[in-house]
This record gives sequence, C-alpha cells and structure tokens, in this order.
Amino acid sequence: MKDRKIRMGMVGGGQGSFIGAVHRLAANLDGQIELVCGAFSSKPEVSKASGAELFLPDERCYGSYKEMIETEATLPEGERMDIVSIVTPNHVHFEPTQLALEKGFPVILDKPLCFTFDEALKLKETIQSTGLPFALTHTYTGYPMVKQARAMVASGELGKIRKVNVEYPQGWLAEKLEDSGAKQAAWRTDPKRSGKSGCFGDIGTHAANLAEYVSGLKITKVLSRLSTVVEGRLLDDDADVLLQFDNGAHGLLSASQISTGEENALKVRVYGEKGGIEWCQEDNNSLYVTMHGQPTQQLRAGGNNAYLSDLALANCRVPAGHPEGYLEAFANIYRNFSFAVRAHAEGGKSDMHIHDFPGIEDGVRGMALIDAMVESTEKGNVWLDLKLS
Amino acid sequence: MKDRKIRMGMVGGGQGSFIGAVHRLAANLDGQIELVCGAFSSKPEVSKASGAELFLPDERCYGSYKEMIETEATLPEGERMDIVSIVTPNHVHFEPTQLALEKGFPVILDKPLCFTFDEALKLKETIQSTGLPFALTHTYTGYPMVKQARAMVASGELGKIRKVNVEYPQGWLAEKLEDSGAKQAAWRTDPKRSGKSGCFGDIGTHAANLAEYVSGLKITKVLSRLSTVVEGRLLDDDADVLLQFDNGAHGLLSASQISTGEENALKVRVYGEKGGIEWCQEDNNSLYVTMHGQPTQQLRAGGNNAYLSDLALANCRVPAGHPEGYLEAFANIYRNFSFAVRAHAEGGKSDMHIHDFPGIEDGVRGMALIDAMVESTEKGNVWLDLKLS
Amino acid sequence: MKDRKIRMGMVGGGQGSFIGAVHRLAANLDGQIELVCGAFSSKPEVSKASGAELFLPDERCYGSYKEMIETEATLPEGERMDIVSIVTPNHVHFEPTQLALEKGFPVILDKPLCFTFDEALKLKETIQSTGLPFALTHTYTGYPMVKQARAMVASGELGKIRKVNVEYPQGWLAEKLEDSGAKQAAWRTDPKRSGKSGCFGDIGTHAANLAEYVSGLKITKVLSRLSTVVEGRLLDDDADVLLQFDNGAHGLLSASQISTGEENALKVRVYGEKGGIEWCQEDNNSLYVTMHGQPTQQLRAGGNNAYLSDLALANCRVPAGHPEGYLEAFANIYRNFSFAVRAHAEGGKSDMHIHDFPGIEDGVRGMALIDAMVESTEKGNVWLDLKLS
Amino acid sequence: MKDRKIRMGMVGGGQGSFIGAVHRLAANLDGQIELVCGAFSSKPEVSKASGAELFLPDERCYGSYKEMIETEATLPEGERMDIVSIVTPNHVHFEPTQLALEKGFPVILDKPLCFTFDEALKLKETIQSTGLPFALTHTYTGYPMVKQARAMVASGELGKIRKVNVEYPQGWLAEKLEDSGAKQAAWRTDPKRSGKSGCFGDIGTHAANLAEYVSGLKITKVLSRLSTVVEGRLLDDDADVLLQFDNGAHGLLSASQISTGEENALKVRVYGEKGGIEWCQEDNNSLYVTMHGQPTQQLRAGGNNAYLSDLALANCRVPAGHPEGYLEAFANIYRNFSFAVRAHAEGGKSDMHIHDFPGIEDGVRGMALIDAMVESTEKGNVWLDLKLS
Repeated sequence: MKDRKIRMGMVGGGQGSFIGAVHRLAANLDGQIELVCGAFSSKPEVSKASGAELFLPDERCYGSYKEMIETEATLPEGERMDIVSIVTPNHVHFEPTQLALEKGFPVILDKPLCFTFDEALKLKETIQSTGLPFALTHTYTGYPMVKQARAMVASGELGKIRKVNVEYPQGWLAEKLEDSGAKQAAWRTDPKRSGKSGCFGDIGTHAANLAEYVSGLKITKVLSRLSTVVEGRLLDDDADVLLQFDNGAHGLLSASQISTGEENALKVRVYGEKGGIEWCQEDNNSLYVTMHGQPTQQLRAGGNNAYLSDLALANCRVPAGHPEGYLEAFANIYRNFSFAVRAHAEGGKSDMHIHDFPGIEDGVRGMALIDAMVESTEKGNVWLDLKLS
Repeated sequence: MKDRKIRMGMVGGGQGSFIGAVHRLAANLDGQIELVCGAFSSKPEVSKASGAELFLPDERCYGSYKEMIETEATLPEGERMDIVSIVTPNHVHFEPTQLALEKGFPVILDKPLCFTFDEALKLKETIQSTGLPFALTHTYTGYPMVKQARAMVASGELGKIRKVNVEYPQGWLAEKLEDSGAKQAAWRTDPKRSGKSGCFGDIGTHAANLAEYVSGLKITKVLSRLSTVVEGRLLDDDADVLLQFDNGAHGLLSASQISTGEENALKVRVYGEKGGIEWCQEDNNSLYVTMHGQPTQQLRAGGNNAYLSDLALANCRVPAGHPEGYLEAFANIYRNFSFAVRAHAEGGKSDMHIHDFPGIEDGVRGMALIDAMVESTEKGNVWLDLKLS
Repeated sequence: MKDRKIRMGMVGGGQGSFIGAVHRLAANLDGQIELVCGAFSSKPEVSKASGAELFLPDERCYGSYKEMIETEATLPEGERMDIVSIVTPNHVHFEPTQLALEKGFPVILDKPLCFTFDEALKLKETIQSTGLPFALTHTYTGYPMVKQARAMVASGELGKIRKVNVEYPQGWLAEKLEDSGAKQAAWRTDPKRSGKSGCFGDIGTHAANLAEYVSGLKITKVLSRLSTVVEGRLLDDDADVLLQFDNGAHGLLSASQISTGEENALKVRVYGEKGGIEWCQEDNNSLYVTMHGQPTQQLRAGGNNAYLSDLALANCRVPAGHPEGYLEAFANIYRNFSFAVRAHAEGGKSDMHIHDFPGIEDGVRGMALIDAMVESTEKGNVWLDLKLS
Repeated sequence: MKDRKIRMGMVGGGQGSFIGAVHRLAANLDGQIELVCGAFSSKPEVSKASGAELFLPDERCYGSYKEMIETEATLPEGERMDIVSIVTPNHVHFEPTQLALEKGFPVILDKPLCFTFDEALKLKETIQSTGLPFALTHTYTGYPMVKQARAMVASGELGKIRKVNVEYPQGWLAEKLEDSGAKQAAWRTDPKRSGKSGCFGDIGTHAANLAEYVSGLKITKVLSRLSTVVEGRLLDDDADVLLQFDNGAHGLLSASQISTGEENALKVRVYGEKGGIEWCQEDNNSLYVTMHGQPTQQLRAGGNNAYLSDLALANCRVPAGHPEGYLEAFANIYRNFSFAVRAHAEGGKSDMHIHDFPGIEDGVRGMALIDAMVESTEKGNVWLDLKLS
C-alpha cells in the first residue's frame, strides 16, 4: 500500500445523497485515497448509475453492501478495496460495519455509530478483537482551530475547567419539511431510520462530542429536555440539556432544528480558572482566547502561524488568510484515518497525537448519551448518570 | 414643572459608587432633569463631599435618606425635589422607596426591586394606592434595537414564538474578588446586602426581564441550577435555567459571573414559526432578523432609518452610524420616566407605547423569579411554577 | 467657577438642527456644563421658541450672536455665560468666534474651522493673542480607543509608521437629497454655506484629522481626486486622496457621500514596522492590534481594563462591556474642554496629556487641506505641498 | 474522455512548493481530474522524488516540461495526459504554455499570465489559433459569493455602478523575508523571476481582476503609486491606484505586502445608484448587500439557498452553514475548466454562464495593468490609458 493510493469502497451515497457526496469530496481532497467500488444503493440500477457518474466500472458497482464486501474480499490485495466508507442512514450502520470488519476491512463510518446501545457495544467488541482501524466522522473535531482549542485546554493554560457551553442551532426543520418529500428531512425525522432521537441524535451528539473533545472532559450526568416543537413530528426537534463533567465542571448543551433562521451555528465555549475560549463553526478559522483581564486574542488557522500547537498545524493545509472549511475538516478525518490505515498495514501505529480522528469510544458515548437524553426527558427532566456498559 | 427641568434627589451613589455615577450621567443626558439634592451616603461627611463634587449646596446634601425625604417634603414646589432616584445596594431599596412614595415623590429605582418577595408586594401596593410614577432601571430594555425586537415580535411577523434563549455571561468574578476589598464585588456576593441570590439576582433578573420584554411572553415555570463555582463564595455565581413560557414556548437562560474573559455579553434570541431575531448588548446598535429561507437582515439603530418601528425611533437620538450605547439606553429610562412624571403632574398619562420603561410588574416578577430559582436548585433542579402572590 | 457648573451660551442649534442638539447632549452628559443662554437662530422668534424647549428664560434667548455676546459680556461673572458653543453652518463660524474671543469668552466650535484659509489664520492669531481656551469638535478623536491607538503608536510599540489608511464612506447623498428640501443636505452641498469643498470639507477633514491624531504624523503632500458623482450637485461628493506624511510614510484617504448603503463607517488603519492597528467607528469600543506574526488582539474600552493607556482610561466612563458611543466621544471634548476652561480661570493649564481635545492647529490644517484638495483636483490630480501659512 | 477522469500533467509544484500543492488539492476535490505525470522540478531527481510522494510511476516524472510535453504527446489517447497544469514562477509561464498548446494540450496556468506584455499577446494568438481551452487561476473569482455579487450587479439591481473599491492588504513581507531564504518571498521579490512589479504583479492583479469581474466593468485609466517600503527590496511591495472604468465610474485599488498584521484581506465594494455590495475573502461565505435606505442583507453561500443566482448556486458544493473556502474556490476553476475540456473533446462548449473561469482576456489585461502601473509611477503618478495591443 506504500506506493499507491488507498482503495476505498463506499456503502450508501448514491444519487441524491448529501452526506455521501461530502464523504467523497473529503476522501478525494488529499490524493491519499481513491474510490474503487461501491454499493451506493440497495437498488442495483441506482448503484450502477451512481457509480458510472463517478467513473467506476460497472462490475465494481454492487447491488448490496453484502455483495460488495464479500466479492471484494475475494480479490487480490492491491486490486480489492482496502477500506470501506459507510454513509447510509443510521439504521444501516451496524450490519455493514460488522461485516466489513469481520472480512478484515478498516471502516470509516458516518455518525451516529448505530441504532441501539447494544449494537454499539457489539461494534466496540468487534473493533477491539480485530484490531482494525475505525473512524467515526464527527466532522467538527477535524477543524484546525478546534484542535488548537483542545491543545490549549490540555496544556493547562486556561487553568482548571469550570464550565463548558455548547450549542448547535439549526432552523431548517422549522417547517414540517418531511411532509414535502425532502429526503434529508424524511429519514432524519423517522424513528425507524434515525433511531429514538431526532435532533439530539443528529446534531446533539456532534455538540456533545465537540464539548468533550475540546475540554478533554467526559460527561457523567445529564438532565435533558427533548422537545418536539413542530406539531405531528415523530421525533424531538429541539434539546436543552444540563451537563455534569467528570472533573466537577458543569455545562449546558442546546441543540435545535427549529431555531428559525439559523444555519449550522455550532459553537463551543470553555471557561477555565484563568481564561476562556470560544469557537464557532461559522467562523471556523478563528479561535478566540481571553485570559482573565487581558484583551481577547484571535488565533487564526494557517500553516504559517508558528504560535499554533503542533496538533493544529498538522491539520492546516494552507497559510493564514486562505479560509479552510467544512470539507477540509472532513478531509482531515479521512486523511488522518488514511495514515492509520497505512501504519496498520505495516504493523505500526500512526502519530495520533497530531493526526487524530474520532473512533469507537466517541461512538459508544454518543449512543449512551442518546439513551440518557430520552430517558431523562421521559422521566420529567431528571438527572441521570451516563451508562457506558 | 412645565417650563423647568425636573428636580431630582438621589439616595446612594456617593464617592466610589459605580451605578450611582451611571444614574447621574443617564439623568443628565437629555437636559430634562437636574440633580438638586442627595443622601449619597449614610456617612454625612461622605454625603456632603460627594454632593460638593456635583456642585450641590451643602444644605442639600443629607446624612440619610430619611432626612432628605422628610426635609425636602417641607420645601415649596419648584424648590423641593420632584422625584427620587434610589441607587443603593439591594437591602436599602425597600424602605427609602416606601418613604418617598408615601411622601408623594415618584421614584426611579435600581434593580432588583428589593430584598424579599414580601417587600415587593408591599411596594406594589404602595405604588398602586398612591398612583405615583415608578421606574425600575432594567437598563437593557432601554436600547432602541431591543425595542425594535419587541415591536417586531408583537407585530406577528415572526409567527408564533416557539423558543427564547437568553444568556448573560460575565467573567469578572472568576477570581474571588470580594476578598480583595473590591466594593462592587463585596456587596454583590454578600447575602446580607444582595439577597438570597448572587448571580441570578444581579444579572439573571436582567436576562429574564429582557426575554420577557422582547418576546412579549411571561415565564410560568422554571427548572434552575444555581451554582457557586468559586470556592468559599457565599452566593451563586452561575445559573443555568430551563424556562417555560405562557404560550407554550420553551426557553433557556444562562447567566454567569465566572465565564472567564466575558465582559457583559447579554444576548437574546427569539425564534418564531416564520423567523428569528438576535440581539447582543455588545453590538447593541444592530438587530439581526432572519425570515425562514431568507438572508439575514441587519437592522440598525438611527433616527433616520424609516424602516424602524415607532417604538424604536422614539428611543434613538442620532442618525444611523453614530453609535449609541449603554448610557443612552439608561438615559431612555430616565427620559421616558420624566415624560411620565410631567404627564402625571398635569393629571395625565404619557405615551407609554413609545416612551415605555420598566416598572413595578417587572420588579415583582424579578423577585418571584429569584425565589423560584433558589427553591428549584435547593430541591435538586426540579420544575416549579412561578408564584406571583 | 470652582464650585459651580460652567455656564454656556450657544450660537445656532435651533429647532430642526441636528448638530446643535448633539452638542447639547454632549455638554449635558457629565454635569460640568449648563446651558444658560443662546442665539439659536437668526430669527428671534425661532431662537426664543428653541430656548423655551430647553427651559431657558425668554430674556436669555437672543436674536443674534452679536446681541448675545455683547449683552452677556455686560452681566456679572457667575451670572453671565462663561463659554460659547458655536454650531452654525460653516459660513457663520468665523465672525461669532472672533467676537466671542474678543469679548473674553472661550469658544468650542463645530468643524471645519471656518470658510477660508485666511479666516483660519486670523482666528489662530486671535486665539494666540487672547490666550483663551479653544476647542474644535473633531468628534472622532474623542473615542477612548482612538486615544488608545494614539498612545500605542506614540509609545513606539508598532515601530516606525509606514502606512496610514483612512476611509470615511457614507451613502446618504447617493440621491440628490438637497432637491427635496432636506436641511442637512441643503447646506452641506451649497458652496455659499459649506465652502469650496462638500464631501472633503464635511467628512474628509474628519478623516485626515483622525489619521494625523492616531499616527502622530503630519500630512505634507497630497494628490487628490475630488469628484461630483451625482449629476447637478454643486460640490464634490466623493474624494480619493494619496497622502505623504512628514516621516516619509505614505497614506490613502477615501471619503464619500455616495457609497450607497454605508452609514458612517469611518475607519483608520496604521501599519508600522512591528505591528498594525485598526479602528472603526461602527465598532468603536474595540481596537484591533496585530504584532507581526502574532494573533490579533482586541483591546476594549472600559474603565476597568488595566491594560489600557492612561490617555484611554481617562476618557472611559463605564466598565468594559457597557458600550460607549458617539455622544460619549463628543462629550469627552466638552468635558476635557471644561477642564481647560476651569484651569484657565484659575490661571493654570489642564492635564492635556490625558484630557486632550482638538484645537486651532487642527482647524488651520483642515482649512489648508481643503485648499490643497481642491487645487490638486483642478490641476488634474497632481501632487501639492500642504501650505500652512 | 466521457467515462473516465481527465488526466493531468503538472509543470512545477515540486517539494516545498506552496501553490503547486494548492493546485493539486483543487484538482483532486471533485474527482473529475487525476494527476498522471509531472515535470515537478528542473532537477530530475527532485521531480522524481516529488512524483513518488504523489504515487506517480517513476517514468511519468519528467526532468523538464519539454520532455514531459513531448513525450506525453507521443502516448496514445487515454493513456497520455489530457491537460497541463502550469504552476511555476512567472518567468517560466510563457514557454511551457506555448509548447503545451502547440502540442494540443489545454492549459490551466497560475497567474499572472506571463512575464511581458508581448508574451501575453503571443499566448493570446496561440490560444485563439488552436481553439484550445485555457484557464488562468485568478482564484478569488471562484468563490460562490463573488459570483453572486457579479450576478447581482449584472442584473441591474444596484443601478448604474458609480464606484468600485478594492483592497488587498497583506503583511507577510513587512520584514525583508527574502534575505532569510524563504522560497516564497525570494522569487516574488526578484525581478528576474517575478517580472517588473512585485506587489502589484502578485496581488494587485488579483484585486483588479476581482474588481472587473464583480462590477462587469473594465478599467480604462490608472494613476498609480507603487512603493518599495522595505529598504533594499528590489520590487514594489505596496501599491495605491486611482482607477477609471469604462462606464465613467471611478475606483480605488490598494494592494500591500507590508501592511503588518494583515493576512490576506482581499475586499471589494461596489456602489451603484440604488445599492451597494461588499465581499471580503476572510468572510468569504457571506455577501453584504445594502439597498439605499434598507437594512443590510447578509446573503450566504449554500446550495440550498434558493435566493441565490444560478451562477452562485452552480458553484456551491454544500448547504449553507458548512463553510467553503479557498480550496473550494480554486477547485471551482479546475472543475469548471474540466467541463470545458470535456465539452471541447466532444466538439462543443460548456455552459460558461454558470461554470465560468478566468481566461486569456483576464491574463492580457493583467499584463497591461502591470505595465501601466509601473509607467505611471515612473512618470510621477500620472494618469495613463490602459494599452491592450
């Protein structure tokens, strides 16, 4: 694998898919990975048509993930796919992931991990037993300035962390879009495909993951109010949550799909004894750091900014002033995962301290959080411990 | 009173006071009010020294509010003060207000209203029985673009309101400043002078008042987590609250004095079925309005912006591009109150639909909220109805 | 004068005036000055009606500045006005200022100084010979963060200054407003009342003054292109200018009244060998400072921000997070001028290093700049030395 | 070419190159193009080492562009490269471009076009005579919101355009970086490799191109002041220019490499009779539009924003709230060029009204502007007509 691109197969992501196209852009960017096959749809003809648009040969466009994984496994190394990217709706995460791992393929999987907490534990077991690289695309931790934030908190500069606020307001589901046939809205609001939580499962898990990643802390207790604001919707479309972290810090998480007019305004703020930091996805190339009593500093992404941490610098592609964005953050996960895959192929480990990416632990915690949120709400907004086993 | 300035006496606000100086700047600005006397301190010599700096004659600088109110009441109309401004710490709100009202003087009072909910009800009774003008300086509702926000919500443009988020992060008490002799920190963290809540009482009440003012809704239920983050502090310095409003909307209120690096970043967001709005005190001359699926509009304060509501326009002093600020917002309360005082003196009512200011209802609700916050926290963060009688 | 407010008379600023009202708000704010008389209009009945609204007695509302100055001069000290504020259009600056000074009254005058450069030199002579305090309201230098910028440049932190960019875009004259009877537009576009330059005289002089104040440099040469963009307008409504400064730095000045959609977006940027700074009037409480290779720092106005210079701190009224604005900047000129007036009355000097305000030198330079701009344009956009005598 | 990726060869962009790496990222993103060969360096061993890192076979890594173009031309269609990307310093633009075109390869070339105006005319002739697709990477016109700006101006919404301001401040050459061996600084400040202008040639041409693209106008006259601010530097590092456009509008262009603290703050503002727009590269996903007397609107990039023009929508990859950046803008040029290459291969034309990219006309104008800037400065900052033949 040393002197060639990593060969990737994809499950899901056929014509009309949003996140599948994003995964491919992200996988393309750095020239480390090439798409060689796919089971883009459960309808064979759609899968083939989708693959044709991607310049894939007909025989590598499969009619099911099962067919793809099993067939590819029989091809010789260097011809067969090396890794599998899984970008289906939530209810089709567990089985293809299990199968791919069992057949020896490292997997990069769209979040949330799966459908139930039980599945999560099983996946964890499989990953541990196979020892294969596994990545979960919690995209937002791929941003260079999020990594800078994590590095600064970890360095102790801000002092002991006292409070973590994270919010993820969106407005796109302010109308009952699922009734109009919009594909993205339809599966996300459908408990059969999305799971037991809508808004929290879709974006609240991103917010929680970001809060934990930046702060270096773990959520231990939650008190949640999941709400279904739009009449007739089947899942929650708004979530307000009180958090407790393992070092005693407290936090607040707010996620919403009915905050009319909001795009995707994920923001995290971490307050320590000595200083505070703020990062917002819509101004993703800046990190605002304020030490108590001092002017706010605007740290900027850019490979030439020597004041940045190694972790941040390793995830910048261009000098400051050349904005990087969502696709580059996503591509960092693919690129860093590709380093792990190459290292694994050679029997080693990649340098995860600078080329990190989210994995199975993030996925298990996400599923546990979904369970806790729903249960806390059902019990009348009470405190619950996060159950991880 | 028609052809002269309104004559004002002040209780509190002696040398070293922060809010007393602010009240005087606000009262000065529009040339409607002149300071004629004061009981600036309970120490007569400090009161006199403070008054001398303000060019007041020695004999109008009193050693106690009681002396001031009683003496002034004996002076002839046109010489005696017309109104009383009370700017003392919370525990010295009730008695001077009661006395001033009983002696026939309209009162403008710093928030929160008083020390206990019982006092609040008594003040309400006195105000109702005397029929005298009364203002409570919830400053932030004095900003033109807050008034614009209120007018737009009231007009129905945003549709039914579904969610109200208000936050008020400060960082100045991230250190235990009260130990260093800082006057502002000392009384605010002292239950004997501040009351049963620190952070919520000081700034959470502002946030709640702003949320209600802008949304036109009333908080009916709360679930609160007041925290004392800095070790050894006697009152809460951080508050996270889930809210329920009278129209079924839900909300989130976060107030903090330990959010290191934050100045005074009061922000309110209101989301309706059709659109959302956002206003932040640190960018106070702008109001951001986004109708579902449309570009965000930045509405700007300015007396020449014909697209603004009458309510907003009546509270602008200069054309757009000439930033107004905190003192102008504060001055709007004084100016609008002065219109009410003049109208009252002539047996009428001022045009409160454009020259509005916060009053006793805001004060009573603030005290009820403080009680509910403390009780909800003590009971383990449970839902409580707001009790208003 | 020690134990009382300074008594002020006003020339101009009658009903319907914009800048007269602003001057009064500014003079009111700090409680150092009281308005005691005025010649608010050349029509005696308008002057009296205007004064009545300001609670002035009929006999102190004069029908002409001449009457006011001569009559007040005969009143006893402590009753008569102490200073004169002149807020008339440009063509009525010179004569009242001369007369007031000759009668011994310190003058605070709206900019630009006067109508011709000859008048400017005469005023300078009068001010020097009388030794009286004199202030010119170049408002924008009254902002705390402009003062901070000046202090930082002066300290040498930024290294030798290499480039100064100043811009002042407005859009309000994008239409031919003067045809619609708008008072503010009418006199500003009329060469008989405004002088030989419209846009540059009105706002370009502010921009140039700001550039010199912040950089501590003096403009020595200009190459200008004044344009009349709106057809039929009698004066320039747009100005682009190349500048040369006395230390060899170069600069760019752009002022416009036809930049559609702009409010009052005065911005100055100063670049030195080691760092650069940026300040914009529409975000006036922040100063952005970037040292080469370092994160941008956002310095904030606020009396509690110990990192600010003495010059900035002396011109803040409230703590950080409480926005101050245009009126406070204006009031700083009035307040600082009042300190100079008090000191002069006692035979001394005020502490101009922290309580500074613009004066006659600024005014003379402004008039010289107007002459140079017009001449450079007429000669086909050529370089001209600034002539100061 | 229909059912496969377009095969690309690259000239320049070996190890240590900045812009070569950027070109490859841009070419990778959309999966339309694959790199198959390169002459990455004039040193064969560096070329081979660079190619190896890109997973290219040794035999396709050439020691010179000549070798590459001539050898590849002999390979069969489908194996040989289809297009050439040229990313060398300016003095190595003309010859490889000529040769590639002569051998029948479409070219995508880094800007500025070449070294002298004569070369520019020759390239234009070759392009016209061969009829081959040609793209020049004026990256900034690839941003969706720049395209939106162009579409809005073209639609007439803003009325007749009166003024265009464009600025491009950078600070990275505030120090004499070329003395420290920094590769990027060295060639850019070297007249033998960069041409007769440093700052204007490097970034001023981008600014001028952006101004023309957005406004739809053409620069006809210039008065320029190019300056060499850093002592001992061989080329200009700062440029201030007065512009005249073909419809009578005037403009201002400022480009600088010594504006300490600035990153890459390219900004364009266009003012028409009815409205104005502003776009800044560091906030690239927003376009600010203000119609006279109305609130500013913030239009946002995003494939789901139905209010955007077809031209903008065709150049967005993800929904609003997912920031795109510099690489995506760059990739739009590659992707749109790839559409033109495919269409050309089939004897047609691509839909340039939505999939546009800069070409030879932009390049010729850029070279003419460089000549005019240098000559205007040498003659003492005088007006010159732009000479295009």
